[in-house]
Amino acid sequence: MKGFFRLLTTSQVQQILQSFPELTHKQVALSDALGRTVACDILSPEDLPPFSRSTMDGYAVRAKDIFGASETEPALLKVIGEVQMGQDPGAGPLDVGEAVRIWTGGMLPKGADAVVMVEYTKEIDPSLIEIYKAAAPNDNVILKGEDCQKGQVCIKKGARLRPQDLGLLAGLGVTKVQVIKRPKVAIISTGDEIVSENESISIGKVRDINSTTLSALVCQGGGIPVRLGIVKDSFDAIYQRCKEALELGADVILVSGGSSVGARDYTLKVFRNLSGSPPLVHGVAIRPGKPTIISRLGDKALFGLPGHAASCMVVYLLFVQYLLNIMLGLAPDTGMEFKDVICGQMFPSVTGREDYVRVRLQREDNVDLPVAYPIYGKSGLISTLVAAQGLLKIPRDREGYHEGEEAEVMLLP
Amino acid sequence: MKGFFRLLTTSQVQQILQSFPELTHKQVALSDALGRTVACDILSPEDLPPFSRSTMDGYAVRAKDIFGASETEPALLKVIGEVQMGQDPGAGPLDVGEAVRIWTGGMLPKGADAVVMVEYTKEIDPSLIEIYKAAAPNDNVILKGEDCQKGQVCIKKGARLRPQDLGLLAGLGVTKVQVIKRPKVAIISTGDEIVSENESISIGKVRDINSTTLSALVCQGGGIPVRLGIVKDSFDAIYQRCKEALELGADVILVSGGSSVGARDYTLKVFRNLSGSPPLVHGVAIRPGKPTIISRLGDKALFGLPGHAASCMVVYLLFVQYLLNIMLGLAPDTGMEFKDVICGQMFPSVTGREDYVRVRLQREDNVDLPVAYPIYGKSGLISTLVAAQGLLKIPRDREGYHEGEEAEVMLLP
Repeated sequence: MKGFFRLLTTSQVQQILQSFPELTHKQVALSDALGRTVACDILSPEDLPPFSRSTMDGYAVRAKDIFGASETEPALLKVIGEVQMGQDPGAGPLDVGEAVRIWTGGMLPKGADAVVMVEYTKEIDPSLIEIYKAAAPNDNVILKGEDCQKGQVCIKKGARLRPQDLGLLAGLGVTKVQVIKRPKVAIISTGDEIVSENESISIGKVRDINSTTLSALVCQGGGIPVRLGIVKDSFDAIYQRCKEALELGADVILVSGGSSVGARDYTLKVFRNLSGSPPLVHGVAIRPGKPTIISRLGDKALFGLPGHAASCMVVYLLFVQYLLNIMLGLAPDTGMEFKDVICGQMFPSVTGREDYVRVRLQREDNVDLPVAYPIYGKSGLISTLVAAQGLLKIPRDREGYHEGEEAEVMLLP
Repeated sequence: MKGFFRLLTTSQVQQILQSFPELTHKQVALSDALGRTVACDILSPEDLPPFSRSTMDGYAVRAKDIFGASETEPALLKVIGEVQMGQDPGAGPLDVGEAVRIWTGGMLPKGADAVVMVEYTKEIDPSLIEIYKAAAPNDNVILKGEDCQKGQVCIKKGARLRPQDLGLLAGLGVTKVQVIKRPKVAIISTGDEIVSENESISIGKVRDINSTTLSALVCQGGGIPVRLGIVKDSFDAIYQRCKEALELGADVILVSGGSSVGARDYTLKVFRNLSGSPPLVHGVAIRPGKPTIISRLGDKALFGLPGHAASCMVVYLLFVQYLLNIMLGLAPDTGMEFKDVICGQMFPSVTGREDYVRVRLQREDNVDLPVAYPIYGKSGLISTLVAAQGLLKIPRDREGYHEGEEAEVMLLP
């Protein structure tokens, strides 16, 4: 007789996953650091900019010398030199009534505290200018250290590096960063009927879909996929392949398929055998995705995922990606974006189970929010996910949604 | 005297960019196709699944044989065999009153049109079962071709391949796809005062920020960045480096920096010289980002971007990424996500100019939407972008926003 699952809720499962630690650190070059999580606060090794700079083309001046200058009463200044780009300004310190020609990015000469834009000046002769506008100290100047001060935390631990973050680090001359390692995720498909996507199919056989989908999801989610192919539905075959995954240093193993009771039992037995203890999770109160298994071996996680393509992806998004984010040192979260929608028709469900209904979204006249329509089809169909933009979530305590009600959709990545 | 720009609006510039064509095609392996744009409709080469399959463990039956079966009046069927996974079911065609043991994913034997879950059956002896529940035809069965029919368009031209799309293609045995080429984007920084992030800085010098930021943005945006380093502010140096970029097959050239009038003029002259015609765009009515230049040479685009770090990034997001998306065969759009927010304080602006104010967003009690606060700082500061989550857009026809007003924020990638 088939055993019944003791089903856990989504949040119970996610709570359990929070006990996994983040991975260790490694150093990478700035050019490889996009999207990586910073392992420890990065302190600025110097001031940025390293000196006070002009932000305009014009004249470096002492602001008080041109106090009250206007179109009708211009200030008259003596030009004592020109700042060469990328060089010590040379000229200066400025004395009363003196100015120095300067370009955008040029180093402010000593004594100067503001820059007047060239538009507000007129050259009388090469050593004399009229200035038509007053300036406050620091006008058109970026002060030394204004962007980032030496010793200041410039990027915080846990930040996921974006282009602008890398730009700041480049500006500071920080060309290597300590980041959290990317989790290695071994991907194994099981099933006597499964062949690889490169093979031709004989009668009774179907091609492996999950290895390809999972592999792409892991890439997108910041992990390193390690495809370990297809194994037969047998304890020995699954056990050996999982051992291989561990020897390759996998942090997470995904065994998908084995949807038949027998095969599911093999995965369960293999996990029990490897970890030496019962699974943390065996069955989740969601649809699709109920027959999910999660075991723990040290700090490594072993997932038994449903074989059905759509179920497999839903479980990946809710739980595997959640764990990858924890391992990556990010906030415990699936990282999925949620959107409010209006139900375009009735979405029935039953209480006690969380439903994730594949939906397409469309804009309609006189409706502020996108309108969601279900994409019908069994959880074994991958084409339903191809047609879907998101998964409409029906919480456990609801029997569904009526047409016109507001609901929440998890947008597919 | 400095010339004045004839400023175009954001949408005028984007309109101009729409005249660039999408790039040509190439074939890539499925494993390299994540995120790529499909160049032509992909037709399904076969039925998926290639035969009708069970979605449950149980018995394959003729639905009409168990019509009306219930707990109190079970149907009695003769078991004539078992479907082996991955093989021709062998048994069948089913005769009246016959059933075949079947597993999830197994091929439905001839004559059977439904599967009864094992939970609703009881084995009397190895060749006889009782069934407690009626089934409709196709219950617990995925029909041949139900996921995808041979000859049907399974992925449309212009789709950006997601994990589930790759899964479907794997299931169909499609292991190579025609995709649109990724645009090669040459990145050149100019400025006599600029040194690379790997160099130590002497007095008057600053490190190159834009090459790193732009390179990461191009990666994230689906292009191939080609960093061509730093050149001096001179016509010859910029011209030679642009020629080099063209010889390397660049589809887009980004020359950043040259914020000083002289340097900007060099970029303009180089572009005019290369393209043989005046620029398409010379100045945009946005802040930051006004001194933007765009020229066209055949189907290649030449961008003169502001040197200031924040301005450079804003112009990249609004225009360069917009063009990359066109070249990638995607909808003409920046691809940026917009979010409605409440202004946490006043955002002043002037009419006739579109402002993009760097903001941080926070959640506050009793406010439905995120609340936006400006991050003050000159457009030369990269740290303001590091602190920002988005850019609050102040449209051309507004003088700004009052505290408490609703506005739109472009979320930074």
